[in-house]
Amino acid sequence: MSDTFTKAFEQADYHVSGHSPRSVQVLKEALEGYDSVLESDMYGSGKVIEEFQEKMAKVLGKESAVFFPSGTMAQQIALRIWCDEKGIKRVAYHPLSHLEIHEEDGLKELHHIEPVLLADENRVITLEDVVNMKEDIACLLLELPQREIGGQLPDYKTLQEISAFCREKGIRLHMDGARLFEILPFYQKSAEEVCALFESVYISMYKGIGGIAGAVLAGGHKFTEQSKIWKRRHGGDLISLYPYILSANYYFNQRQEKMEQYYKEAKELADFYKECHRVYLRPAEPVSNMFHVHFKAPKGTMESLLAELYEESGIGLSGHIREVNGQTSCFEVSIGDRYAEVPKEKLKGAFEKLDKKMREL
Amino acid sequence: MSDTFTKAFEQADYHVSGHSPRSVQVLKEALEGYDSVLESDMYGSGKVIEEFQEKMAKVLGKESAVFFPSGTMAQQIALRIWCDEKGIKRVAYHPLSHLEIHEEDGLKELHHIEPVLLADENRVITLEDVVNMKEDIACLLLELPQREIGGQLPDYKTLQEISAFCREKGIRLHMDGARLFEILPFYQKSAEEVCALFESVYISMYKGIGGIAGAVLAGGHKFTEQSKIWKRRHGGDLISLYPYILSANYYFNQRQEKMEQYYKEAKELADFYKECHRVYLRPAEPVSNMFHVHFKAPKGTMESLLAELYEESGIGLSGHIREVNGQTSCFEVSIGDRYAEVPKEKLKGAFEKLDKKMREL
Repeated sequence: MSDTFTKAFEQADYHVSGHSPRSVQVLKEALEGYDSVLESDMYGSGKVIEEFQEKMAKVLGKESAVFFPSGTMAQQIALRIWCDEKGIKRVAYHPLSHLEIHEEDGLKELHHIEPVLLADENRVITLEDVVNMKEDIACLLLELPQREIGGQLPDYKTLQEISAFCREKGIRLHMDGARLFEILPFYQKSAEEVCALFESVYISMYKGIGGIAGAVLAGGHKFTEQSKIWKRRHGGDLISLYPYILSANYYFNQRQEKMEQYYKEAKELADFYKECHRVYLRPAEPVSNMFHVHFKAPKGTMESLLAELYEESGIGLSGHIREVNGQTSCFEVSIGDRYAEVPKEKLKGAFEKLDKKMREL
Repeated sequence: MSDTFTKAFEQADYHVSGHSPRSVQVLKEALEGYDSVLESDMYGSGKVIEEFQEKMAKVLGKESAVFFPSGTMAQQIALRIWCDEKGIKRVAYHPLSHLEIHEEDGLKELHHIEPVLLADENRVITLEDVVNMKEDIACLLLELPQREIGGQLPDYKTLQEISAFCREKGIRLHMDGARLFEILPFYQKSAEEVCALFESVYISMYKGIGGIAGAVLAGGHKFTEQSKIWKRRHGGDLISLYPYILSANYYFNQRQEKMEQYYKEAKELADFYKECHRVYLRPAEPVSNMFHVHFKAPKGTMESLLAELYEESGIGLSGHIREVNGQTSCFEVSIGDRYAEVPKEKLKGAFEKLDKKMREL
C-alpha cells in the first residue's frame, strides 16, 4: 500500500465505510455501561458469560450457545463434532471459505478433516452443487453472505431446498454467519427463521456488530456441550472472556436494529458507484451492508487516483485496495455507523470527481 | 462448597490470598492508563502487541516472544513444534502437569502427541527421572513451580543438570513458567538466567501478575514464527488481543517488583499455619508466593470450622477447600496484594482461634 494513499485516506474528513476506528475507546465506551464490581466469568461459567450465551441462543432460536474467542476456533470445532458424529472426516464448503484461505489449514492440520470444495470462486453454492456432489460428507458449511465474492447470497428458496436436501441425506448443515444480522433485511427474515434451516450456527461479534473480538456458536444442547470440551482443548476456555462478551453485548444492543439502515445505505452508496466509468460492483446490487468495488485499472493507478480524490473531496472511500489482476483492482465496502455522518452533497461531489478521473484514465 | 462457608468467606473483612477480586474494575483500572485513541492490534500486528512482545522477549532473554490468549494454546503449540522438529511425537512432563489434567487431552486429541509421565504425584522431576527415561522424546516440560503439589521446585543445581543433560541428548527443554516471576526471589536469579536453561518458555499474565488473561511464549525466532502459524490454526490469532495485552503490561509493571514481597509474606503466613494443630504445609517451607495447606480433617468439618473462624475473626483464609481423601482436606494459598492489607494483630488472632478449633476437633 503506498504511503501517500494510506495517508490521504487517514487524513480525509469523512470515512464512508465501517464504524469508528478500532481504538481502545471502543472498549472503554462499552465498559462504561457496566458496573465496576461486576464479576468476571471464570472458565466459561458465571453470570456474564451465561447470560449472554442464553440471550444469543434465544436470538438464534437454538437450544444453547457458547461464546468463543474466535470464529476460526468455533467453526473448526463445529465441523469436528459433526464429523465425529457421523464417523466421516469430510465436509463441504466454498473454495473461498474462511477455513480454506485464512486459517493456515487448521481444519486439516489439527482435525485431519478433508474439505470438498463446492461451486467455483465466482459464485455461491447452488442446490445442484450439493445434489451432484459425489463424496460422502458429514457436514455442509454455507457462508451467508459469501464474503470473498462481495457478500453474495443464494435466494431464500435455494437455502430452504439445500436445507431440506441435507436433512433428507443426513448431512449436517452449518452456517458461517459471521455477517448473519447484516443479511436479515434482504431476506426479510428473523435470525431465528434463517437459523432454523441449519443444525449449527456461528456468528461473529465484531463484523457489523462492531465488538472487540469473539464469536458465538449455537445449536442443540448436546452439540454445544461437546463444543465446550473442544474449546478447552483448543486453548479457548480462558479464565476471563468478559472484555469481549461485554463489548459484544453492548454493541449488539446498539447495532442489531441498525442493520436495515446499513443495508439501505449500502444500496444508496452502490448507486453512486454505478454511475462511475470503469467501475463495477460485486454483487451488482448489494444484499447486505457490504459489496466489492472493482476498478478497471491497476492497483498502482487507482492508489494515486484515489489519494488525489480523497485530498480534493475530503471523502475517504477505502484505505485498502488490492490487485485483482494486472488490469483491475478492488476494495471492500462495509457500511457501518460512519456512513450516516458523511454529508450527502460532499459524497455526491466526490463521486462526480471519481467518475471524471476514471474517464480521464 | 457449602453456601455458609462461601458466604462467610465473601463477607470476611480481609482476604489473605490473592489480589483484588476479578471484577470489571481490574480491566477498567488498567485501561485508564492508556490513551483512548491508541489503535488496536490487528491479527498479531501493530504497536500494542509488537512492543509488548519485544519487552517480554527482553525480560525472558529470548530472541522473540508471542502473545497468546492462553497458556493451554501456547504450550500445546510449543510441544508440537519441538515434536515436528525431531519427528518424534512424544514429550515428557509431570503427571500433574496442566496439560495432563486440565486441558481435556488437547495435546493428544489435536496434536496426537503422547506424554511420558515422569516422577510421581508427590514430588518434582529429578535428574534421575530424566536420565533413566527409556523412551525417546522430543521435549521435556518442567513446570516451575509445580503448582498441583503446592508449588514445589527442584534446586537450581538440578535444573542446570537437567538442562545440560537435555542439550547433550538433543532434547528440547520447555518451561511451564506460569508462575516464573514468583520463584525468582527463591532462586535469587533473573528471569533471563532461569530461561537461559530452556529452549522455550511460557509465562502467564494472570497468576502473580494479575492481568485479565493471556500468555507469552518465547524462544528463538524460528520457533516463535512457527508458533504464530499454529496460533492461527488454533483460532488464537484474534483481530484484537489488546484488552489482555494492555492489562498484562499494566499489572506486569506494577507487580514485577513485588514478587520478593509476596514470597516473604508467604513465608510469614506459612509460619502462622505451622503453629496450628492438625495442619501441615506443602511444600513445608514456601519457595514462592504459594503453598498448599492440608488439614487432618474432612472437607465438611473444615468448612464448618472455617466458616465460624471467618465470622469470628473477620479474616477469610480461603474460599475454596477440597477433599484430599476422607480424612484430609486442603486449600491453596497464593499471596498477592491483599495480604499486606490484613492487620497483623487480627491475623495472629485468627490463627490462635484456628489452632484452638483444630485442637478441639
